[in-house]
Amino acid sequence: MILIKRADPTAISHRIVEFNGMIFLGGLTADDKSQSVQCQTEQITAKITRLLESCGSDKSRILSATIYLTDIKTKVEMDRAWVAFLPKDDLPARATVGVAELGSPETRIEISVVAAK
Amino acid sequence: MILIKRADPTAISHRIVEFNGMIFLGGLTADDKSQSVQCQTEQITAKITRLLESCGSDKSRILSATIYLTDIKTKVEMDRAWVAFLPKDDLPARATVGVAELGSPETRIEISVVAAK
Amino acid sequence: MILIKRADPTAISHRIVEFNGMIFLGGLTADDKSQSVQCQTEQITAKITRLLESCGSDKSRILSATIYLTDIKTKVEMDRAWVAFLPKDDLPARATVGVAELGSPETRIEISVVAAK
Repeated sequence: MILIKRADPTAISHRIVEFNGMIFLGGLTADDKSQSVQCQTEQITAKITRLLESCGSDKSRILSATIYLTDIKTKVEMDRAWVAFLPKDDLPARATVGVAELGSPETRIEISVVAAK
Repeated sequence: MILIKRADPTAISHRIVEFNGMIFLGGLTADDKSQSVQCQTEQITAKITRLLESCGSDKSRILSATIYLTDIKTKVEMDRAWVAFLPKDDLPARATVGVAELGSPETRIEISVVAAK
Repeated sequence: MILIKRADPTAISHRIVEFNGMIFLGGLTADDKSQSVQCQTEQITAKITRLLESCGSDKSRILSATIYLTDIKTKVEMDRAWVAFLPKDDLPARATVGVAELGSPETRIEISVVAAK
């Protein structure tokens, strides 16, 4: 049985779960939700970097991302922050969907990531 | 080529797909959809337990969950059932999103899970 | 460190990401979005076939699919195309959710897939 390693606990989850060379990050949101979607995206990508580095991976190792936006018209802003975040050759597979609501009315974007160690 | 094992078929899917030590469960909903979100969550978590045990895993081995709610205000109820379901040390990575609609008007929650064998 | 292989780049992603025997396909949409949901689904499943075959896999190796619909009432149409697409014994785990919006107003369906090599 291969070991599961969990880190960075919250009240309802672990933000990092490692298994067999893969890393699952929980859905991440910005801390300062008063900001624009572009700034919220930048806050989230900074978290992704920090979380991945904390377990010996890095942003060049992201396999797949699911991006939830409460207003699909903000996709342009998010895309700008996303491509600035990642080297062109390392862009992961991605699904982007416009959802009704996220964890709070101010949460305009949430990002889920699967990465390789 | 590593074998794929599929079990618990429905008309449009298999509820269990195993590959290389990982288990993918299809999006699960409650059978009795007249109930509250908390009760629907409890029905789903009972299904997760049953499905994982049927293939030699268990609820302590969940890696990642995606939880879809038709009303994000019911997240509190769902969270209550979720943390009661799982040992604190085994909480998986999780994304929670408020969606427009699920499979039927009464379906208020759907949960997708990736687990380790 | 296991190698990550990325292929079929877009401006914001790679449509194919391979790692450790798994294949992550980005969220796929139809090229001709003037068509019905059934026809959009058929366009997407043709893309899935092409992308998987381009990296030495095929549609019988799909592990999990997440299907986003902008109108859950179109699930029946989508289901019809989905079961016509796949051998009954190879149907993957699946979550189907009704979302507020997808990449453009005409995009009525987007499908994300994880497959085995």
